[in-house]
Amino acid sequence: MSAVKTLAAPIPPGGMIGILGGGQLGRMLALAAASLGFKSHVFSDKTDAPAFQVATAKTAAEYTDWTALKTFIEQCDAITFEFENIPAETVEFAAKLAATNPAASALRITQDRIKEKTFVRSLGIGTPAFQTVTSERAAATAFDSLGCAHAVLKTARMGYDGKGQALVGSASEAAHGFALLKQPAILEAYVDFQYEMSVVAARGMNGAFAAYDPPENIHGGGILHRSLVPGRVTEQIAREVKSLTQKIADAFGYVGVLAVEFFVSRDGKLLVNEIAPRVHNSGHWTIEACAVSQFEQHVRAIAGWPLGDPGRHANAVMQNIIGPDANDWAIYAGRGGGLHLYGKSEAKPGRKMGHITTLTPKTH
Amino acid sequence: MSAVKTLAAPIPPGGMIGILGGGQLGRMLALAAASLGFKSHVFSDKTDAPAFQVATAKTAAEYTDWTALKTFIEQCDAITFEFENIPAETVEFAAKLAATNPAASALRITQDRIKEKTFVRSLGIGTPAFQTVTSERAAATAFDSLGCAHAVLKTARMGYDGKGQALVGSASEAAHGFALLKQPAILEAYVDFQYEMSVVAARGMNGAFAAYDPPENIHGGGILHRSLVPGRVTEQIAREVKSLTQKIADAFGYVGVLAVEFFVSRDGKLLVNEIAPRVHNSGHWTIEACAVSQFEQHVRAIAGWPLGDPGRHANAVMQNIIGPDANDWAIYAGRGGGLHLYGKSEAKPGRKMGHITTLTPKTH
Repeated sequence: MSAVKTLAAPIPPGGMIGILGGGQLGRMLALAAASLGFKSHVFSDKTDAPAFQVATAKTAAEYTDWTALKTFIEQCDAITFEFENIPAETVEFAAKLAATNPAASALRITQDRIKEKTFVRSLGIGTPAFQTVTSERAAATAFDSLGCAHAVLKTARMGYDGKGQALVGSASEAAHGFALLKQPAILEAYVDFQYEMSVVAARGMNGAFAAYDPPENIHGGGILHRSLVPGRVTEQIAREVKSLTQKIADAFGYVGVLAVEFFVSRDGKLLVNEIAPRVHNSGHWTIEACAVSQFEQHVRAIAGWPLGDPGRHANAVMQNIIGPDANDWAIYAGRGGGLHLYGKSEAKPGRKMGHITTLTPKTH
Repeated sequence: MSAVKTLAAPIPPGGMIGILGGGQLGRMLALAAASLGFKSHVFSDKTDAPAFQVATAKTAAEYTDWTALKTFIEQCDAITFEFENIPAETVEFAAKLAATNPAASALRITQDRIKEKTFVRSLGIGTPAFQTVTSERAAATAFDSLGCAHAVLKTARMGYDGKGQALVGSASEAAHGFALLKQPAILEAYVDFQYEMSVVAARGMNGAFAAYDPPENIHGGGILHRSLVPGRVTEQIAREVKSLTQKIADAFGYVGVLAVEFFVSRDGKLLVNEIAPRVHNSGHWTIEACAVSQFEQHVRAIAGWPLGDPGRHANAVMQNIIGPDANDWAIYAGRGGGLHLYGKSEAKPGRKMGHITTLTPKTH
């Protein structure tokens, strides 16, 4: 692989931050970049990307339109991406022309559940038991070898928000599930967890690490519904998962914000569920409860700035507003708390339309 | 005066907020509008207005370019302004075509220090003693009739950040000062205050009122340097000044955020210094310390939405970054707290380039 560009010095205010991806994460990244005095250029394959509404400059083109990409990159002082389903090739292309973070290498690993879990285990960090599945027969065999009552069949690549996942309860269900997916998959032992949580953290260009307090996350249908800080997460567990997250970030040589989702199993084990090489839905509460949000923290990291203080001054509950619930915006507007709507035109079922964060006095 | 447009219903997310003025206040209003899912259209008489960098749409034209204004207004669902030095004629023009708040009537009064103080006194609220001055002789006479050791000569109109002000210590200095101003002025008794403070508050379309806790403000050379919440402001004084501010907002039939600056005199009197019919520098700390910032609160008010909770969950110190101090951005970036830089290209002396807010646990 050819050499990648690095920053010679922190980008001064007025610099242009290039963002690949124009959804709500790109939108909130652009807003945070603006707070620090940066301009933003958003590149999206959609013509009505929500982030376009707040960007200083915008390009609508395919992620493999190398000519459009080159023009975009040449106008930016640093490049980042909002989402792990941006093609790794696109990020590799950008990295040759401008300082690009997180690195494509971290993206390639986290885009593939098998590589991701193998990587995590190589660091001595626990994950649910899993088997690679490439055929119906292999799916059935894998189910039997996991030896658990239930397992989750997931596409190896391009899954998010519970898409491309199915809970299966027998070898034949596993085989049938694979027949529907028709692509390389992973079969994971179903973890009967006490709760789920995540660490949203940043690693700077100088290797500095700053983790937000981990929220307890509550999912429904594979989609995050609520994050509670601190929720059921004890101070000791918080310390442990932050430390595991630092190990992962260091191993990647990571620059930017990442999120690591954990299960706390019934028997108290901490198991990595997945890694998102980006700002994360379970970190949205940091906008209200911290002086420096995850979005600002990410911009700081990729611009070569010192990381901000991840301390929080309140407890927080973040609730997603999903699909047609967004039509009740007037009800949300009347509730206390910080309301965020993403500027999406159509409230399709399952689509994240906004979120609302309410604060209460800090306990621990 | 012809009828003004009003909103038939709250503006739904996706609506376009029109902002007259493209400085840092317009920029932060546009960012807050985006958080609520609105688009923004910024109109400025500068071609490199900082707010253009974050606006969905932009128009660069004179405030008296009625053709450009009409095109702008017709694309917006509501109109507001960032600054009281936007011509009242422009706001009156807008009000005929779209719901425009605050009203031009409040703007006309606050644009003129004589009208403003007369209005405040008509509500039974104290101000420093003052005299209208329209000639050198009148200036000298006014100084003698105020009967105080020092007085402040101010242009009646178009002053901000200490511009067009001079401290005078004799009748002849007052006359000389007027000779330099060459425009209608006001001579105010100099108040030997304990401290200065301000109330930033909002009034909604339904008459609801929500005030933030008043900060103590520290000025230097007429420019706000720091706001401290709560600073020296006691809970009792806070209640009193909020109540006086509500009286003023109600008397205006005001819609939006306004700021009322107060002196607390040595003998404990609460005197109104000035009223700003807009979001205010002394309210910037609300971005970090409150779930709903003054900028979001203003957008809520002018969009016909319910006001948000003005409660704060931390103490705060907001420090302005003025002129060439902005070249030290790397030092500010390394400090704890929420850093805001305004995207201005040139760090002229006295120019507000950014601010930084640090939070500490809430005391009272």
